[in-house]
Amino acid sequence: MSDTLVAEKKPVAGNIHGIESWPVQRTGKSRLKETNFSHLPFGHVFSDHMLVADYADGAWREVGIVPFGAITLSPANLTLHYGQSIFEGIKAYKNQQGEAAIFRPDKNFDRFLKSAKRMAMPSVPREIFLDGMMQLVALDKDWIPTEEGSSLYIRPLMFATDDLIGVKPGKKYKFILFTSPTGPYYNKPLKLYVEDYYVRACEGGVGAAKTAGNYAASLYPTEEVIRKGFDQILWTDAKEHQYLQECGTMNLFVVINGKVLTAGLDKGTILDGVTRDSVIQILRGQGIDVEERLVSIAELISAHQDGSLQEVFGSGTAANIIFISDMQYHGQNIALKPHKQWEIAPMLLKELNDLHYGRIEDTREWMWRV
Amino acid sequence: MSDTLVAEKKPVAGNIHGIESWPVQRTGKSRLKETNFSHLPFGHVFSDHMLVADYADGAWREVGIVPFGAITLSPANLTLHYGQSIFEGIKAYKNQQGEAAIFRPDKNFDRFLKSAKRMAMPSVPREIFLDGMMQLVALDKDWIPTEEGSSLYIRPLMFATDDLIGVKPGKKYKFILFTSPTGPYYNKPLKLYVEDYYVRACEGGVGAAKTAGNYAASLYPTEEVIRKGFDQILWTDAKEHQYLQECGTMNLFVVINGKVLTAGLDKGTILDGVTRDSVIQILRGQGIDVEERLVSIAELISAHQDGSLQEVFGSGTAANIIFISDMQYHGQNIALKPHKQWEIAPMLLKELNDLHYGRIEDTREWMWRV
Repeated sequence: MSDTLVAEKKPVAGNIHGIESWPVQRTGKSRLKETNFSHLPFGHVFSDHMLVADYADGAWREVGIVPFGAITLSPANLTLHYGQSIFEGIKAYKNQQGEAAIFRPDKNFDRFLKSAKRMAMPSVPREIFLDGMMQLVALDKDWIPTEEGSSLYIRPLMFATDDLIGVKPGKKYKFILFTSPTGPYYNKPLKLYVEDYYVRACEGGVGAAKTAGNYAASLYPTEEVIRKGFDQILWTDAKEHQYLQECGTMNLFVVINGKVLTAGLDKGTILDGVTRDSVIQILRGQGIDVEERLVSIAELISAHQDGSLQEVFGSGTAANIIFISDMQYHGQNIALKPHKQWEIAPMLLKELNDLHYGRIEDTREWMWRV
Repeated sequence: MSDTLVAEKKPVAGNIHGIESWPVQRTGKSRLKETNFSHLPFGHVFSDHMLVADYADGAWREVGIVPFGAITLSPANLTLHYGQSIFEGIKAYKNQQGEAAIFRPDKNFDRFLKSAKRMAMPSVPREIFLDGMMQLVALDKDWIPTEEGSSLYIRPLMFATDDLIGVKPGKKYKFILFTSPTGPYYNKPLKLYVEDYYVRACEGGVGAAKTAGNYAASLYPTEEVIRKGFDQILWTDAKEHQYLQECGTMNLFVVINGKVLTAGLDKGTILDGVTRDSVIQILRGQGIDVEERLVSIAELISAHQDGSLQEVFGSGTAANIIFISDMQYHGQNIALKPHKQWEIAPMLLKELNDLHYGRIEDTREWMWRV
């Protein structure tokens, strides 16, 4: 579908950049002062404004920044019934000088366009997704928390707004981009349950798309393993339940004998994580071997038994770099070595945090200064 | 999760049954007279009222019938992001005496509860789902079309209403039941494309649940085959693409040598169709062999080649009984015999229509008189 843009940017009085941008309707009542920045559970608090764009008759027409607030939908809204919805997750950080920057939003934009294609949805123009995001974050810059591990989580969302219930792609869509100040997603090493019955995604499915249904499907199995004392599921492949996939909220890396292994993207069953890609680039930049390939449970168990399994960690925008403490497979626990003996995951965590909070040089131009 | 019901039914003045029922707020402005009953595309027109129930703090609290109209959601509504939504499809018919009846709503209620469990959602009490449906259809009885092939389509929907974006099951839900007068879903025999790359559902997934994401995942592949001149996809299994599954909007039956074959429910990858079950009961009642089992493409092709392939038809609430004219597999067309030579599908269509429109005795008590 086309990504025609009909709406035009306009010069707006009082605009932060003093340049042309989307029209802004400022809130008359900021919630900033009543927000408790020392308690920011993920995804509960939203900043003052949101970007909204509406698609109809083959083009994006109404685009603007308005106060964060409720939207009105028909009970026959197509998305509520058939789940035609995609989203992204991006983070903005503030450095010690109070300057704000967004981590690799262009990678999320690329993935958003791929998700849109798979879910039979229109493209969103760069001017809306990226320029709009920069403008919104600049406007609500005071909402970016400064504490280490905290950030402004940015959530672009697109969904069908047709008010009819035929099983067909929508003809009308809404793109909303809002932000949420947030503390760390996980704050301790995780215990993973290696799933051997339920499936997150299979080849030919929508596992590579960041679409609503993937998450809905994971809820019941995840509740089951949480009840058993685990934190997350490590999904395995749909055909044999032999190969590591991802965790639903993060990609997974395994370090065996100094080599870093992670599931490849070629089967289309896992998400092409932006943090995953960043991890791979950082590691390769340091001369560390990274293999993107099928990694079997058998290989993991064997490495655990012969002592060559060194580290297991997750990566994701919400999760950042997360250490794994244990993985259970068929009742057998694979306990990782104490994290103090680890080298790679702690290095990555430090490297990414230093980059996010502006303490090291941004040689790859990953931080987009707002 | 519990299905505690806190809200109470109340005696309501002017209630159709004169019995206790859910509170009704009648519309002041019926749209009935301005509705064109000779043009009723599926799912576009909605009758005057809807039943709404809200779940919070572990119980269903507010239940009532109100005018069909917009609902208000947060941009952070959990369902828009993570697709925690299930629905059902049921039909009400009017007989020649003007009496209204609903086809097997108890089967849909059972399936709704199973979908709710798989999607980590609360149960909905029978008093809301079934009694509420009966009350709503009675109230909007004049919206039931009378033309053969037409009916009042009933759509129960439940989705999470939490306004936060953590990937967890919701704690708040909305159940909405609305109705839509509708003509036939398909009005000609269908050409099916036997899918060998994309997948609707895999074992361990959510294929047996009537949940939003299953439909979203089917949109792009379906658009592709429509572009190639087909009407629908016939999905095959995720592991080998060798076994028939369903069509996404209907279950599939194959008649070979007088025997009726259809995919079994044991793998949890296909929907437990109410019309599917009705078809099987009617056939077995007439002494016709029905096998619920793996049916391979190879078996189908072989039967086509030796002339023993007699009929292929779909079944579904929206679709009713639909004849298949052609199926394409790997570029090879399997053309079915002319429908005038068919016996089983036309008999089922007549039997179900006669039952729906009250022309034969309802020996199985499938029609629930409103």
